[in-house]
Amino acid sequence: MLIGQERVAGTAGSFQAMDPASGTGLAPPFGGATPQMLHRACVLAEESFDTYRETALATRGAFLETIAGNILDLGDALTERGVAETGLPRARLEGERQRTADQLRLFAQVVREGSFIEPRLETLLSSRRPLPRPDLRLRHVPVGPVAVFGASNFPLAFSVAGGDTASALAAGCPVIVKAHNAHPGVSELVGTAVQRAVRDCGLPEGVFSMLFGVDTALGAALVADPRIKAVGFTGSRVGGTALMRIAAERSEPISIHAEMSSVNPVFLLPGALAARGAAIAKAFLASLNLGAGQFCTNPGLLIALEGPQLEAFISAAAAEVRGSAAATMLVSHIHRAYEAGLSQLCAMAGVTVAARGERASGCKSQTALLIAHAETVLADKRLQEELFGPASLLVRCRDMAQLRELAESLEGQLTAAVHMEAADLGMARQLLPVLERKAGRVLFNGFPTGVEVSHAMVHGGPYPATSDPRFTSVGTLAIRRFLRPVCYQDTPPELLPQSLQDGNPLGLWRVKDGRPGLS
Amino acid sequence: MLIGQERVAGTAGSFQAMDPASGTGLAPPFGGATPQMLHRACVLAEESFDTYRETALATRGAFLETIAGNILDLGDALTERGVAETGLPRARLEGERQRTADQLRLFAQVVREGSFIEPRLETLLSSRRPLPRPDLRLRHVPVGPVAVFGASNFPLAFSVAGGDTASALAAGCPVIVKAHNAHPGVSELVGTAVQRAVRDCGLPEGVFSMLFGVDTALGAALVADPRIKAVGFTGSRVGGTALMRIAAERSEPISIHAEMSSVNPVFLLPGALAARGAAIAKAFLASLNLGAGQFCTNPGLLIALEGPQLEAFISAAAAEVRGSAAATMLVSHIHRAYEAGLSQLCAMAGVTVAARGERASGCKSQTALLIAHAETVLADKRLQEELFGPASLLVRCRDMAQLRELAESLEGQLTAAVHMEAADLGMARQLLPVLERKAGRVLFNGFPTGVEVSHAMVHGGPYPATSDPRFTSVGTLAIRRFLRPVCYQDTPPELLPQSLQDGNPLGLWRVKDGRPGLS
Repeated sequence: MLIGQERVAGTAGSFQAMDPASGTGLAPPFGGATPQMLHRACVLAEESFDTYRETALATRGAFLETIAGNILDLGDALTERGVAETGLPRARLEGERQRTADQLRLFAQVVREGSFIEPRLETLLSSRRPLPRPDLRLRHVPVGPVAVFGASNFPLAFSVAGGDTASALAAGCPVIVKAHNAHPGVSELVGTAVQRAVRDCGLPEGVFSMLFGVDTALGAALVADPRIKAVGFTGSRVGGTALMRIAAERSEPISIHAEMSSVNPVFLLPGALAARGAAIAKAFLASLNLGAGQFCTNPGLLIALEGPQLEAFISAAAAEVRGSAAATMLVSHIHRAYEAGLSQLCAMAGVTVAARGERASGCKSQTALLIAHAETVLADKRLQEELFGPASLLVRCRDMAQLRELAESLEGQLTAAVHMEAADLGMARQLLPVLERKAGRVLFNGFPTGVEVSHAMVHGGPYPATSDPRFTSVGTLAIRRFLRPVCYQDTPPELLPQSLQDGNPLGLWRVKDGRPGLS
Repeated sequence: MLIGQERVAGTAGSFQAMDPASGTGLAPPFGGATPQMLHRACVLAEESFDTYRETALATRGAFLETIAGNILDLGDALTERGVAETGLPRARLEGERQRTADQLRLFAQVVREGSFIEPRLETLLSSRRPLPRPDLRLRHVPVGPVAVFGASNFPLAFSVAGGDTASALAAGCPVIVKAHNAHPGVSELVGTAVQRAVRDCGLPEGVFSMLFGVDTALGAALVADPRIKAVGFTGSRVGGTALMRIAAERSEPISIHAEMSSVNPVFLLPGALAARGAAIAKAFLASLNLGAGQFCTNPGLLIALEGPQLEAFISAAAAEVRGSAAATMLVSHIHRAYEAGLSQLCAMAGVTVAARGERASGCKSQTALLIAHAETVLADKRLQEELFGPASLLVRCRDMAQLRELAESLEGQLTAAVHMEAADLGMARQLLPVLERKAGRVLFNGFPTGVEVSHAMVHGGPYPATSDPRFTSVGTLAIRRFLRPVCYQDTPPELLPQSLQDGNPLGLWRVKDGRPGLS
């Protein structure tokens, strides 16, 4: 484990990584953090906060870029360990490594550019009646030390130096990572890359720590620590809601950003199915099978109107499903949960199996396409629950009214997709307001896997997709989760932070008396 | 009560307003909402949402201005009823009425200007390798129907058509107000002004409803209703935390913006006390006695270094306290709580009474200044709790280290103030980072009462000042509480909302490929 600049062997129990492909353990053993170790990491984080948050934007940007460079420098050692710990293909891990570095570099740009501070100035009006208006200046400051939970399904991009860590560090928050036990070796490598960047950039050591825990107790204690002021989590609904409860029950409740569960409905409108049903079926299977179906944006629900175009689509999709190879899943308990959930679904009244893919022994997924009628799905909410893996449920709807009813019945989602042609425009117009209310991202004529890291991305959505729909966990807007506004009234110039000083020394976009500009 | 365009007499119990000055009841009786009435208001709000949120910005702006005009048109009937129900002076209510109208007009400007939508566009890069970048467009949409709780201490500015309602309506959210039982007559007048504006602007009736409840059950049921997506509350810590629990325990947890309790520490640095102690004492008492001490920004804690300049200040302040007239408090239970809390404070070991103001019978406040040493306050957190009314505790500190320790020990605050001269700059520099972490607004050489409604104001802060420090409940940034981002990917031009269309038909500030501008 990494506590500030120290390397520490955890002594509260021990565990080791498993190779999901072979089912064998991987050396070395890792130890869990004791309460004292956790305490030390939290104290260091708190002590570093005032210094780190006021580092020059250029320094903070260079820090993020140094992390990115250090991660790329890990080279094959990182991808090899990643393949062993996760069963994911090498090319995928190489892509994810590049994405992780690019994400850190994008946040470095965001930090340098500085508009996340959102300065707002209001001129003193000393002669206003009945009372003068004071000099008011607002900036956004970081909330404080942040706890980040690594996710099993993205060992790099949503883990130790992933999006939560990058955006929290960019905001000016120290980070304590609870690394995921499914990839401790990868976590150690990446964590060391961050730790080295802290040292080489001359930052206080408490800016970054990384801990392991053998069970959920460490994560619970981390969220409960009074020095922690926000939480980033990507994982299951059970895990996320447990942390939400802990965060709410603290003597100082804090905000938690949990990205949890989503079935990512895909609406197949009749014009699109008629025009290019077979191509849609092919693209659907590619999305469904990506990463053995272990994406939070996996298309778990297809919704379409009954008719010959749907029957043709089902035939085409079923053929693709039957041709789907079994793929190694991340960890054995995810595989077991997938198998059990799939059996349960298949046994439910009103659910039929359209097709299954290759079945293999060991920790391997079997792709599946199930079918049910909208009436069945409307009557039993369990059919709308996320099943983590490459299974999708196709829902037949009698007519547009029933399709809309089904859309209205959905829980909050990360994404909603619509396949349409010009002939479907009227239906799409009816559907869009519903989807806007349900999802953080609405996409057309595509599938939801593949989340662009950019300025206009939203990876969020109403509960249970996330714990707070007003934020995104991917893209540059993710920084906002870790900022709060502070107003400075009649502040002596000597005490004003640079971002709020007269003459705009940092050259930031600022809103002055209600108008945006560079003054 | 007002449910959409209907006037409804509540039948779940009844209550009447009390004149706190005379202790007598005021006609007419008001009735509480039944569960059916609440349900009807929530259903109407939900039904109106998709239409209201997509009304033209000009229409929504005109709606807010119509409300402002209708409230001003209520004329003397409003202020007279206000004086009777609250005991506040007529001039104060006239000022608050103007502030309420100005606030609605400011949000009308915000709506017309449209930058709260924060559009972000990212150009399609079809030839990017390995994968093309999709066309991505982000806008902010309203979260859904909002529940607003009126506050007793601002019967206009933080009540039926106050800041929460104005910012939620500006965001595009229908509002259901749980009116405060301390001023039902004022609430009815203002509610009717809003209801008429809904009709005259041709908006769906569910955009606004206003309910009464005889006890806390109605508010609890309102927050628990699945159609409600956010809550604005101004009131006590007990009330706010109760609603936070209800919001967290829903099957779909929602965000609640509760502005609760703050003692608003004022640091009196030695140079300032030496230079102008008597003037500071005068300004302090004016702030303390404002509205009979019933401001959320009331200066409840003074903190200073021991020394002759402090003794001189205490003498001057004590004289001002002794000259303070008793003033009618809002409701008898607030008066009783103030009297009981003050007695308890005075009886605590280590607390001495520097001076008391005029004492009068009936529901009238008695100003009080108490003194304790920092050691006493550090040892007993109860001395840092808010006592709603015109009492303040002055804390003597041995040295700067102890003063900083005390500052670090503070809970979250709405404001923190520093009185200083050039000679105090070093001390102020040490103090500012602590105060930035503790408060939503830091002010210099002034007192915290008087919250400017403007672009750069923050009326917020870490718990228990509010339930979520990342937002403000006053000023134009308050609109952000009720918005969430949605990303549109590869969306056909016919389906794009105007704010995201090519050519920028609404002329909004938009961030395109990371750069702000008008394209």
